[in-house]
Amino acid sequence: MSNYKAPVTDLRFALHDVLKAESLFAAMGFEEASADLIDAVLEEAGRFSGSVLAPLNAVGDQTGCKLDKATNEVTTAPGFKEAYAQFVEGGWTGLTASPDFGGQGMPETMGMALSEMVSSANLAWSLFPMLSHGAVEALKHYGEDWQKEAFLKPLVAGNWTGTMCLTEPHAGTDLGLLKTRAEPHADGSYSITGTKIFITAGEHDLADNIVHLVLAKLPDAPAGPKGISLFVTPKYKVDRDGKQGERNELHCGALEHKMGIHGSSTCVMNFDGAQGYLVGQPHKGLQAMFVMMNSARLGVGVQGLAQSERAYQGALAYARERLQSRAPKGAVQPDKPADPIIAQPDVRRMLLTTKALTEGGRLLAAHAYTQLDAANRSADAQARADADTLVSFLTPIVKACLTEWSIEATYNGQQVFGGHGYIAEHGMEQYARDARITTLYEGTTGIQALDLIGRKTAASQGAGLKLFLAEIEQFIAANANNPAVAEFLPALGGKAKEWGKLTIDVLQRAAANPEELGAASWDYLFYSGYVAVAYWWARSVVAAQASSHPEAFKQAKLETARFYYARILPRTLSHAAGIAAGADSLMDMDSVRFGD
Amino acid sequence: MSNYKAPVTDLRFALHDVLKAESLFAAMGFEEASADLIDAVLEEAGRFSGSVLAPLNAVGDQTGCKLDKATNEVTTAPGFKEAYAQFVEGGWTGLTASPDFGGQGMPETMGMALSEMVSSANLAWSLFPMLSHGAVEALKHYGEDWQKEAFLKPLVAGNWTGTMCLTEPHAGTDLGLLKTRAEPHADGSYSITGTKIFITAGEHDLADNIVHLVLAKLPDAPAGPKGISLFVTPKYKVDRDGKQGERNELHCGALEHKMGIHGSSTCVMNFDGAQGYLVGQPHKGLQAMFVMMNSARLGVGVQGLAQSERAYQGALAYARERLQSRAPKGAVQPDKPADPIIAQPDVRRMLLTTKALTEGGRLLAAHAYTQLDAANRSADAQARADADTLVSFLTPIVKACLTEWSIEATYNGQQVFGGHGYIAEHGMEQYARDARITTLYEGTTGIQALDLIGRKTAASQGAGLKLFLAEIEQFIAANANNPAVAEFLPALGGKAKEWGKLTIDVLQRAAANPEELGAASWDYLFYSGYVAVAYWWARSVVAAQASSHPEAFKQAKLETARFYYARILPRTLSHAAGIAAGADSLMDMDSVRFGD
Repeated sequence: MSNYKAPVTDLRFALHDVLKAESLFAAMGFEEASADLIDAVLEEAGRFSGSVLAPLNAVGDQTGCKLDKATNEVTTAPGFKEAYAQFVEGGWTGLTASPDFGGQGMPETMGMALSEMVSSANLAWSLFPMLSHGAVEALKHYGEDWQKEAFLKPLVAGNWTGTMCLTEPHAGTDLGLLKTRAEPHADGSYSITGTKIFITAGEHDLADNIVHLVLAKLPDAPAGPKGISLFVTPKYKVDRDGKQGERNELHCGALEHKMGIHGSSTCVMNFDGAQGYLVGQPHKGLQAMFVMMNSARLGVGVQGLAQSERAYQGALAYARERLQSRAPKGAVQPDKPADPIIAQPDVRRMLLTTKALTEGGRLLAAHAYTQLDAANRSADAQARADADTLVSFLTPIVKACLTEWSIEATYNGQQVFGGHGYIAEHGMEQYARDARITTLYEGTTGIQALDLIGRKTAASQGAGLKLFLAEIEQFIAANANNPAVAEFLPALGGKAKEWGKLTIDVLQRAAANPEELGAASWDYLFYSGYVAVAYWWARSVVAAQASSHPEAFKQAKLETARFYYARILPRTLSHAAGIAAGADSLMDMDSVRFGD
Repeated sequence: MSNYKAPVTDLRFALHDVLKAESLFAAMGFEEASADLIDAVLEEAGRFSGSVLAPLNAVGDQTGCKLDKATNEVTTAPGFKEAYAQFVEGGWTGLTASPDFGGQGMPETMGMALSEMVSSANLAWSLFPMLSHGAVEALKHYGEDWQKEAFLKPLVAGNWTGTMCLTEPHAGTDLGLLKTRAEPHADGSYSITGTKIFITAGEHDLADNIVHLVLAKLPDAPAGPKGISLFVTPKYKVDRDGKQGERNELHCGALEHKMGIHGSSTCVMNFDGAQGYLVGQPHKGLQAMFVMMNSARLGVGVQGLAQSERAYQGALAYARERLQSRAPKGAVQPDKPADPIIAQPDVRRMLLTTKALTEGGRLLAAHAYTQLDAANRSADAQARADADTLVSFLTPIVKACLTEWSIEATYNGQQVFGGHGYIAEHGMEQYARDARITTLYEGTTGIQALDLIGRKTAASQGAGLKLFLAEIEQFIAANANNPAVAEFLPALGGKAKEWGKLTIDVLQRAAANPEELGAASWDYLFYSGYVAVAYWWARSVVAAQASSHPEAFKQAKLETARFYYARILPRTLSHAAGIAAGADSLMDMDSVRFGD
């Protein structure tokens, strides 16, 4: 098992040197989020992740969760419960929550840094506290006062955890098809009946209560997505003054057998007339669910980033120590029987691909989180609106690209290890299996791609893209005479222009044929991601030069940027061709001709 | 679990309509390989694979192999032994072996078709008989007469199976580092001592004896790869008249815990002074091993193809039946609550990507096998030499591209299933885990890429590429006035020219800097694969038009070719940029600057 060392230096670089987090946070009213406190959070979260959570990663994979069919209780892997108690004790569950409910009121951007480290160390474990965040957001925005009082404090404190109960066997992407129903009672409560699947942390032994946020239909619900309501339905009933009562009529019917994240309990949840309360307006549940989902999607992007980082650390260590063959120009360690494989150009290609996409992706995500904070907290209404537009636009890019790059990073990690990459003891195969969920849940990559080109671009005439392109143009103008970055600006400027042009082209075609959006969506997503990261690499070079980091750090940023522009950014060539190709070659084939 | 239906129609198309197998085989002296017999083999192998092997695929994954530490015996999953007995009974183990040793003397191309179906149905199971092929080849070419007599008949009959014992913990790619030693005895035998890892089918309960082909060093061996010898070292000793005797001093020390192919026993093999016999000349073991390895590499490419086919079948069935959301232009099944997801453009993109790479890849592989047969059997010496050059050139492309495409195909299969793709019961996640070995063993993709650009191109001044480009040019010239394929020829001709030009460029740069080969190798590999498959798609369109297949079949080939040229072939744009980018962006970074 390779160990995990939190990338505190690179997180500090992202937050302080590139994003100027301290002044950014201060302008949003996060006065407590000083540079010192930021650093302390990074150090301590890194320490906790590396020393407490990382050693439980393989244990969770091997042991998994156990469901006792007699009691419907789930037991987590050895050490998980104790680690969670320490996490609660350290106040981590409330890092970004409002002080009104016992939280520490830190920016969501800091929550992202915490999430990255926790997810790198132990993705399966990280899912137990993670889902509470969405439940808190939904209740904070849509809950009645008594619901906020009753549920938010224990969720923020971590004594209770939350879930999102959306999916049913026949209703995944298309939630309008769901069948779970809610019968109203005279006392204002509801009886929830139905089966939900893929419920992460639906049942476990880490917390005193589990607060399910459940989508269901009222008896008078219109058909489709406009007939869905949201209910809060805890494992143990909670009365209006917040007292935890008897067991509710819901239970875990089965645990899924999954490719990875074995340490996480992925539950089939049966609601058998469980007591629930309506959250928000009747039939407006999807609106509240999107509040949970958007934040969850950014969070899943960070999970991808986290798996990439961990795979990189393992692959780098192995590439430096594994001796096989000689370097192309002759021995670099002539006293050894062979050279370390990091001397091989193609091994370097794999490592640098992951390094460039991980460090660049970290900035892509961190920037999106600063926009999320700005959307919530900026003093100026226009600034809030712009930040909201920008983070909405960036969310599918962060979710899909960072998770797809984690597939590539964990793939490359295994390839660097050769046959050993397929063997459990080296850890790489677990990272690959664990990372594999991230492109599937909270909306597949295909769904993110459609969200980006449809709702986030076509539906708003490219408002988000315009804001992002303006930021890139501003950067290019500001650095027109900066020799440190001169080698990158022509390519960056050219790609930014092309991004706008490709967008106009596809939107025009889509006006005549709505299939054009879906046909272009996947290539458009990646094109967007690669150009966005090219911007962050150029900014990284400028920020590194201006920073007080050692010369070797500045040099590494410059060299990685050069690699990115030489070997990764050209992927936009094929994606641009895919965007331009149009829908016909996808749509002409009749379903029967796909095969027997 | 999705079922497997052998793609007999497409195999028949590849063999009869595109490759004209009957006349090809007849010209090589395979007179028995008539069209009728070819079809009978395809039908029967397809039936056996679908009905006997496919149902054991999930069983093998869930049960795996068990090692009894007391007896060092390995028990395979329920049903594996019985299925192997049926396979032996059916004569399948000897399909391509020489009648001199009890084989049926069919072309290797027919062996490929059998392998594809068997590997699709059950990759883990397929590895037990597969390794015998390499052992037979090595002994046939390099064994002494008594060794041929003693070992080949039972191997061909399938009563015994073979292994290749190459890898040691510290020696994978770099076999020159291996430490296993062979001490000579006066009676002409040797004592083999050492530890081998990753030995596929190293121990199992399917056969009466297991014939290990072991690389080891003689006491007077020069250092490095030129000091390696090959030994035949059976589980039960075999005397010079072929009689099976007592247990040899070798045993399985452990089974590896792997990401997939759980049904296959991947063994640590300990040789404790085991009796062995030298095969071929002292210190010339690598030469014999390459005979085994080249055929094994083509075979692993076919395993990749097989996983792609199985993933495609599962994903297609699901995409046709899963109802979610509406088609972009409005309901296609208005009487249903939603449309099947195959109505979505991006789902079609995923399916067509797999279909195009699988059917095109099948021809790429089948063509390489016909060259292998021609290299062995053509009457004309020059034809044999050319075929040998061509199959050598194509082998790393087949091995690496078909296995890499299986990663993509199984990835797409899971994505089509959404969250269900991560759950064991649907099978897709097993295909992804199983396929994952194919880019690692028998030389990683990086090793294949180096082999292609180095040994198979630079070292021979592009002899193999020239032969293949000549074939493409001949095809283009012959079809200059064929309207069926006119839309594809300009792109194909352009890419073929560019392929030649990029090759010259990189070889020129490599003359000045040997790092340029490794730096370009990965992009060069994929560039080559995508252009090669573009050729096979153009030929498929021509062959389909000229065939007696139904119109829907011809139309599907044309539409898939159009998709390939519109959406897959443009990947060459980024690979060409990668080839041109040069080595600096990979090599400038000092090892210490890659990270902490």
